[in-house]
Amino acid sequence: MTSTLVTGIGELTTNDEELGRPSDAALVLVGDRIAWVGAAAAAPDADHRVDVGGRAVLPGWVDSHTHLVFAGDRTAEFEARMAGKPYAAGGIATTVHATRSASDEELAATVRRLVREAVAQGTTTLETKTGYGLTTADEVRSARIAAEHVDEVTFLGAHLVPPGADADEYVALVVGDMLAAVAPHVRWADVFCEKGAFDADQSRAVLEACADRGLGLRVHGNQLGEGPGVALAVELSAASVDHCTYLSAADVDALAGSTTVATLLPACDLSTRQSLPPARTLLDAGATVALASNCNPGSSYTTSMAFCVATAVLQMGLTVQEAVYAATKAGAVALRREDVGHLAVGARADLHVLDAPSVTHLAYRPGVPLTHAVWRKGERVV
Amino acid sequence: MTSTLVTGIGELTTNDEELGRPSDAALVLVGDRIAWVGAAAAAPDADHRVDVGGRAVLPGWVDSHTHLVFAGDRTAEFEARMAGKPYAAGGIATTVHATRSASDEELAATVRRLVREAVAQGTTTLETKTGYGLTTADEVRSARIAAEHVDEVTFLGAHLVPPGADADEYVALVVGDMLAAVAPHVRWADVFCEKGAFDADQSRAVLEACADRGLGLRVHGNQLGEGPGVALAVELSAASVDHCTYLSAADVDALAGSTTVATLLPACDLSTRQSLPPARTLLDAGATVALASNCNPGSSYTTSMAFCVATAVLQMGLTVQEAVYAATKAGAVALRREDVGHLAVGARADLHVLDAPSVTHLAYRPGVPLTHAVWRKGERVV
Repeated sequence: MTSTLVTGIGELTTNDEELGRPSDAALVLVGDRIAWVGAAAAAPDADHRVDVGGRAVLPGWVDSHTHLVFAGDRTAEFEARMAGKPYAAGGIATTVHATRSASDEELAATVRRLVREAVAQGTTTLETKTGYGLTTADEVRSARIAAEHVDEVTFLGAHLVPPGADADEYVALVVGDMLAAVAPHVRWADVFCEKGAFDADQSRAVLEACADRGLGLRVHGNQLGEGPGVALAVELSAASVDHCTYLSAADVDALAGSTTVATLLPACDLSTRQSLPPARTLLDAGATVALASNCNPGSSYTTSMAFCVATAVLQMGLTVQEAVYAATKAGAVALRREDVGHLAVGARADLHVLDAPSVTHLAYRPGVPLTHAVWRKGERVV
Repeated sequence: MTSTLVTGIGELTTNDEELGRPSDAALVLVGDRIAWVGAAAAAPDADHRVDVGGRAVLPGWVDSHTHLVFAGDRTAEFEARMAGKPYAAGGIATTVHATRSASDEELAATVRRLVREAVAQGTTTLETKTGYGLTTADEVRSARIAAEHVDEVTFLGAHLVPPGADADEYVALVVGDMLAAVAPHVRWADVFCEKGAFDADQSRAVLEACADRGLGLRVHGNQLGEGPGVALAVELSAASVDHCTYLSAADVDALAGSTTVATLLPACDLSTRQSLPPARTLLDAGATVALASNCNPGSSYTTSMAFCVATAVLQMGLTVQEAVYAATKAGAVALRREDVGHLAVGARADLHVLDAPSVTHLAYRPGVPLTHAVWRKGERVV
């Protein structure tokens, strides 16, 4: 296997407790893994050598919450929202209709386009969800297409009760035939536990059935108001509860005392004109906080993890180091992945090189495209 | 002169009252000007033809407020601010010290780097200011270097009273020898009218002296609290008063009844953890609102006009069209330029082509780099 020595690192963020942020560091990549990390002066020989010219190096972004398998256009809905119309979960039905009508190749082309766009901005691990099919065949198709393009796939049959369907009958379908058909294609299951989507009982039924099938659990909760999502996620030891925009003190305590990651989606909150989530409160309480893009055509049509990091620092009270950790290592924790989100020996060789001397510039220079180079699984892709 | 026909325009923003946003439009560029705008079917022949593939075309950004002539690093100050230390005008002195110590070539290299970065993101007209020299020789040097790289240069000798100097003596220098030496190199004069910088009387003295020399007026006002800046700018018919973060009802009325543009700098407000300015109130009252980056190493180290536009839409209540106008045509008004910021026959051929079908995507897809191509003065530069 070919080895590559990366030198000239201006600042190295490893997200590794022992390594920390070593100065004058170098890395060796062998195959798709990191084989060595240490002082540049002590670096071993390698087949290739890349000098990154004093730039900052950090793990590639781990975007642990996206919805990339969709068709159709919701630009007009966004415009209406910016003109004052409130966001409602029902808008998802527009995308469901278009997604069902699209060909496999159309859906795959959209996923490819957005993955390419994300990678170009430094994202090297992506989760994506089904949830715009909402029939057994369409959910299986979405899962299959997702699995061809991203690292982690989540079954979100319980995204919305399809227009015209009876809620209880639909939940029975989700936990029955649909789950049986989709489960072989996915690692995770998720439910949109929110007013206008699924209530606590329905959400519990879906999550318990999926756990029984061996799927890991995730929850969309507390997006548009306080609700039962967080408590349910913690009770069922979900890997992550996502949104967490409106939390009670009990929710914060529950998260702090759990292994459930609070995954915050600030681009979504801005794009739906909600409040920004209480990230500082969560961190101070001891919860694990991740940041993700929630890329989807309705409520958050961005792939930019740098935008999420800048927003978390400028507007949610996180330090740059906390925000970068949330968008890398904590995203990996939310996906229960130990091989990504950090840079230590044995980790996947996913490097993000910034056109800046430190990660601070991600918040100091908001909006400026700072991705200089990206390695994914040891291959330079940008 | 070579002519270029631009076709395949998915959406054309002209900022021209008669032309509006025509569908199925095409443009012809001849030399550095727009020679024809109309229906694609009626387009004349041209030497070259470029099909932009259904993408949105708008005027290049007019960034009417930047401070690009500087040296030194204020990353640590930004980090301290994000950890809770409040922003104070005095931080400018750090940059003054480093700027005085830098060589001409060092300063020019920074300006070139930031201009290149801005152009790569669709900015085609830039104003920049002196203000980190604060001696006659250093202010002249800054003005000269700026004039070699940007469209409009502003004398900001009254940026801060240099550490150790007496305020009244310094104002006397600014309106005396310094102004006489700098005036030949600049079109505009500006003053930082704020607690910790210059008070109303000092600001008036500077502005009146500069107006007597024939310079157009701009004012930094109402950034860190309500103050006399806006009233003074309006009274003296300044082209623009910039920041406008904290406005009284009387300030809003004064701006609405004036020809002074209210230039808002939201990236700065976010980066200093201030409130965002009352853009909606200003527009509803009838004021002209521009958006600019305020690119500088202390309070707003970004060149991203797209970030400013997205922030204005997502968080300040502007429609996308209002925000785009503010970042193009209104910026031109703030610089009293009739040749830029719009796309009509005779205007400068400054085109920004987005990798998106409409300008809405600038806010719908925050953080995603959307610049596909840029023409400046008729030449394709991106």
